[in-house]
Amino acid sequence: MAAMEVGSGLDALFAPASIAIFGASEDVTKIGGRPLQFLRKYGYAGAIYPINRKAGTVQSLPAYAKVADLPQAPELAVIAVPPDGVLDAVRDCAARGVKAAVILSAGFSELGEEGSRLQGEIGRVARSTGMRVVGPNCLGAVGVPEKAIATFSVALESSFPPAGPVGIVSQSGNLGSYTLRLAAERGIGISRLLTTGNECDVDVADGIAALVRDPGTQVILCCMETCRDGAKLVEAMRLAREARKPLVVLKVGVSEAGSAAAASHTGALAASDAVFDVVLRNGGALRVPSIEQLLEVGHAISIVGVERAPRGNKVAVLTASGGFGILLADAATAQGLALPKLAQDTQQRILSVVPFAAPSNPVDMTAQVSTRPEILAEVLSAVAADPACDAVLLQSANAFHVPRLRDVFLAALEQVRREHPSRLIFLCCRAPQDVRGQLNALGIPTVEGIDAACATLASLVRFGSASTSPTEGSFGSSSPSPTGGGLGWGHAQPLSPDVFSTEATAKRALSDAGLPVLQEVVATTPVEALAAARAIGFPLVLKIVSPDIAHKTEVGGVVVGVRSEAQLRDDYETLLARVRQNAPGARIDGVLVAQMAPAGTELILGTKTDPMFGPVVMVGLGGIFAEVLRDVALQVAPVDEAQALQMLRSLKAFPLLDGARGRNKADVAAAAKAVASLSRFAAAHADAVAEIDINPLVVLDAGQGAFALDALLVPANQEQT
Amino acid sequence: MAAMEVGSGLDALFAPASIAIFGASEDVTKIGGRPLQFLRKYGYAGAIYPINRKAGTVQSLPAYAKVADLPQAPELAVIAVPPDGVLDAVRDCAARGVKAAVILSAGFSELGEEGSRLQGEIGRVARSTGMRVVGPNCLGAVGVPEKAIATFSVALESSFPPAGPVGIVSQSGNLGSYTLRLAAERGIGISRLLTTGNECDVDVADGIAALVRDPGTQVILCCMETCRDGAKLVEAMRLAREARKPLVVLKVGVSEAGSAAAASHTGALAASDAVFDVVLRNGGALRVPSIEQLLEVGHAISIVGVERAPRGNKVAVLTASGGFGILLADAATAQGLALPKLAQDTQQRILSVVPFAAPSNPVDMTAQVSTRPEILAEVLSAVAADPACDAVLLQSANAFHVPRLRDVFLAALEQVRREHPSRLIFLCCRAPQDVRGQLNALGIPTVEGIDAACATLASLVRFGSASTSPTEGSFGSSSPSPTGGGLGWGHAQPLSPDVFSTEATAKRALSDAGLPVLQEVVATTPVEALAAARAIGFPLVLKIVSPDIAHKTEVGGVVVGVRSEAQLRDDYETLLARVRQNAPGARIDGVLVAQMAPAGTELILGTKTDPMFGPVVMVGLGGIFAEVLRDVALQVAPVDEAQALQMLRSLKAFPLLDGARGRNKADVAAAAKAVASLSRFAAAHADAVAEIDINPLVVLDAGQGAFALDALLVPANQEQT
Repeated sequence: MAAMEVGSGLDALFAPASIAIFGASEDVTKIGGRPLQFLRKYGYAGAIYPINRKAGTVQSLPAYAKVADLPQAPELAVIAVPPDGVLDAVRDCAARGVKAAVILSAGFSELGEEGSRLQGEIGRVARSTGMRVVGPNCLGAVGVPEKAIATFSVALESSFPPAGPVGIVSQSGNLGSYTLRLAAERGIGISRLLTTGNECDVDVADGIAALVRDPGTQVILCCMETCRDGAKLVEAMRLAREARKPLVVLKVGVSEAGSAAAASHTGALAASDAVFDVVLRNGGALRVPSIEQLLEVGHAISIVGVERAPRGNKVAVLTASGGFGILLADAATAQGLALPKLAQDTQQRILSVVPFAAPSNPVDMTAQVSTRPEILAEVLSAVAADPACDAVLLQSANAFHVPRLRDVFLAALEQVRREHPSRLIFLCCRAPQDVRGQLNALGIPTVEGIDAACATLASLVRFGSASTSPTEGSFGSSSPSPTGGGLGWGHAQPLSPDVFSTEATAKRALSDAGLPVLQEVVATTPVEALAAARAIGFPLVLKIVSPDIAHKTEVGGVVVGVRSEAQLRDDYETLLARVRQNAPGARIDGVLVAQMAPAGTELILGTKTDPMFGPVVMVGLGGIFAEVLRDVALQVAPVDEAQALQMLRSLKAFPLLDGARGRNKADVAAAAKAVASLSRFAAAHADAVAEIDINPLVVLDAGQGAFALDALLVPANQEQT
Repeated sequence: MAAMEVGSGLDALFAPASIAIFGASEDVTKIGGRPLQFLRKYGYAGAIYPINRKAGTVQSLPAYAKVADLPQAPELAVIAVPPDGVLDAVRDCAARGVKAAVILSAGFSELGEEGSRLQGEIGRVARSTGMRVVGPNCLGAVGVPEKAIATFSVALESSFPPAGPVGIVSQSGNLGSYTLRLAAERGIGISRLLTTGNECDVDVADGIAALVRDPGTQVILCCMETCRDGAKLVEAMRLAREARKPLVVLKVGVSEAGSAAAASHTGALAASDAVFDVVLRNGGALRVPSIEQLLEVGHAISIVGVERAPRGNKVAVLTASGGFGILLADAATAQGLALPKLAQDTQQRILSVVPFAAPSNPVDMTAQVSTRPEILAEVLSAVAADPACDAVLLQSANAFHVPRLRDVFLAALEQVRREHPSRLIFLCCRAPQDVRGQLNALGIPTVEGIDAACATLASLVRFGSASTSPTEGSFGSSSPSPTGGGLGWGHAQPLSPDVFSTEATAKRALSDAGLPVLQEVVATTPVEALAAARAIGFPLVLKIVSPDIAHKTEVGGVVVGVRSEAQLRDDYETLLARVRQNAPGARIDGVLVAQMAPAGTELILGTKTDPMFGPVVMVGLGGIFAEVLRDVALQVAPVDEAQALQMLRSLKAFPLLDGARGRNKADVAAAAKAVASLSRFAAAHADAVAEIDINPLVVLDAGQGAFALDALLVPANQEQT
């Protein structure tokens, strides 16, 4: 956990009583000229102090040579001087009692070592003085209702966005300001914009937490490329959940090409996108795939609110055209929405109004609705009353552009809104902005494209489902999720170093931690092997035990199917001889005499340590499923058995464990228990263990258990050989 | 093949010298009033004849009571009378020598049996007289340059689309007119619009063929819900390919909900969407997933042309922002595009202009490009010269809205266009319409959204690749594709009816057709079985042979692993006894004594007859792959061995056949040969065989062959039991 509370001290950033601008310039195309111009043009009410070596006046305001000369300590400093002057400016600000500084200047860690060093210095000033510092190499921040503009973004050149409930936090200045402009063009009201750039002090997590605390922000939109402090991000998400403030995230760097670009752009050690995805889901954030969806979903949520978000994915689709109905059915299905058949009652009511309608789902009201628009109220009312659906999706290609139809449609929607105040009605339509505003005011979101509408609605469903789900990612729940709290790992009893040396020691440690293994004994003589065999019973497996041999099969160090004492004697000797020949230098601790596993389904189970989010646990089916088809489930460790079961069920190959095609059902409960045990072990020993591979975990028929047949532990700070 | 040439006789529809309107009305909100209003408002130059029982004048034109009263035979008739008057109107038109009629009236097959009968009558008039009839229940047609408007679409109410090279054919009137309006709003020029509705005579295939012949049309956009004549559609696609006219298709009804809605909307026996997909690909049509993509892709192709379409998927991405670069890399990758590393030379050239650029791919020119826009020409020129890339994707969030930047950017793009005339340059940007027009005139498409831009570019790649591919879907190739020509099936020697009775007879027939099977003999006595065993050699499999037993295992009718003569004697008797007990009524023809297959990888192989496109062949890996993971490949029969190999390679589980994880490589060539043989058999006997199931086809190690271990043939007109 960061020493300071996440996101604290940022009030001065968004709502400062006064602003000083270092490097204030007469030239409004310069980064030191533009913020000043914006503050004056859009009417910031506080004091503005241009700071400029030459003093005099800048953009007709009196300028000062140093921050020390100002009549009062400015609350916010905007720093737009060349990079070599930034550290001094930051020190001067801290000395003068400035509360927050925004460094717009570039030329720091993005340019290499010297820049990184300088940036590190600035960060240390921030931490040691408590002055919050945004940037460097960022596009700054804007408090929209306060007109506190600490940015040089061209997005503000032509117009200032309307104030409203949507807050934007972005690492990338360009993505942030693009989001702002798109929002403004669509008439979406904004509370705050924060771009964090190189994040020497204030990062995205701070921004999220600050917007959680901001009473004017209801929905938080966030663009991220990386995360520099996993625990802080998890804490910020927890705050958002607790405050019931929806957090919509565009995390870029999904593809190989994209994440390579992100690593080079941010210079940060990248968390795996798959882990990031799990962390966001655990934290109750709503991840979206595009900047357009970020905006559509954020806007829709701000209109719909938590209460009216659909609790399930069942949608009634309503059109005036068979073709559009089919198109919407396809698009909705592709987004994971379902179109249940409407109730008989509902269909009857529809047919009583439009005898030739297709009354099931999608409902085709036919072109009749253009000549008799009053049909809409009746049909919509019938559909909205149907308990089989969680939401109503109405599509209209044109009605809101035809005055005669528009008014009847609006009246119908108002009426049905009154009748069904908590029912989500969602419009896929083209409409003039004023009409969209009227619809939005009724709590009805409007999206233009068909795919975009279905994607947005599907996000609302995820949002609504998370709001009511008692477990994972529970939105609005105040109890931290088990994984959300999972970032304080590594506080268990230290492991003995020998757990890393052989399969036998690894399995013993994991077995002590609750991972089931079959009976086995390390024998160092034929006599010991025989005694072990008598204790365990045939058939048996023999495996070489050596700290120098990770891949036993490759040196002939494994014999399976030993069925008699005579065979054991022979196999014991030949195994040792073979290994000595194939791996002459290897130390040999003995031969593992192990119970042979009955036939079952093989899983691959493992853990890895993500650089930002710590240990994660993975499970997949063995053979080609995990490795070729990449069918694996992932979760931040530790997980409990219910979560482990969820992981197993999420595998595409899960039917193989669940009795598909006449198989016996496998002991999924035992497998889940094994996953949970391993994850707890990995979390407890996160500092010492970098990676664990269990290959295979064999899962027997239901009730018969699941057993780790091989195990490898890789210590931290050592790559697997 | 249809009796008439596909798409013939439609000149009079799009460019008539004169138009009569049945049911012409004074009231412009009526479907009989609106076409007349449009024709006059937008300045149709030919003669217009309102037809109306009351005669007099309509919309200040002299009206006539009957078509017989007209001073000349109108070339086109628009029929907007109540449904019960339509057949008479059609007959009158045919009698008067009208060349084409558009029936806007609804109330036919969409309303049930009586409507279908009436519609059938109208179709027969069309076919017997040669007058082409569009509709009924359609939104009509428009010849844009001729202003020949035979529609009541509200899309024309506010404005008429600009004339241009894009033609639109749609079954759904609403989808067609929505496409038209979107096109007009984006300044995309249109040649013709045809909506076909219930398709009593003219269907989508006719429309495509007519636009192929229309010299003013360069790109054809098509919305389809169903196909009523597979051979006609295949022929229309062949014509488009031959004429090198790109055909972009939005086929709706992909999902279960969507295709159910399509079946109910069109009343047609639906082809499977998966088969439709293959047919479109074979025909060289470019399928898109949304109406927005239909337009973007169509427009982009009309700008880029066949010559400049990229031949491969390698794209150089160019931005002024790291964040956008990552986002584009993700979006491009998601669409199947690749971002190769740029050549050292290229990177050097970029760095010499912008020392702090990220010079690889995505290229980040940094915000420098806003202060020194002349950078763009240099960087773009370097990137366009890089031979590693098939296309350049330039993104700009804002530049084209800033006058200072816009002009420099335009000049840079003009310069690079001159330097690299055949290089595809693709812009993802927001820009005013006049700027977009200037860019488009340079052969540079512009798309606004990031996902939309990458999807459109990916479609251009598919288009460009198909243009050069010598085999499948070869665009512009004049030789019909093997499958394109495959619709004239069913002309082989008739099959003996007993092929359907047992596994043994089925396998014999398939073996004669080239499908390899293992040695086997039907024995009717223990002595015959013994003789067979001696001829074949152990181990053996025994299977009951009975025309009444389709699922042999279920009645205990299979014994595997018979390894000696003694065992054979026992197993022969117990098998018969068991089957007699479990299936007491079944006729028993004997016991199949078959060579036992060596271990190998099991495929499921089969054919089905699609109601519209005839026999299709399917292959997938056995076990859960085909049935649970739905990993199957599909193609219209017959396929040759190269196509069969392509099908196998397209399976996600193909690595299992290809030596994944240390396996032996399987005999993929033999498997492909088996697929091809089966497909030829299915195509040759399409009239007699509804379905074939080979489960499994066991594929041995490379060089060892592939063998059908079981086979079932289902005769046409009989469901599988």
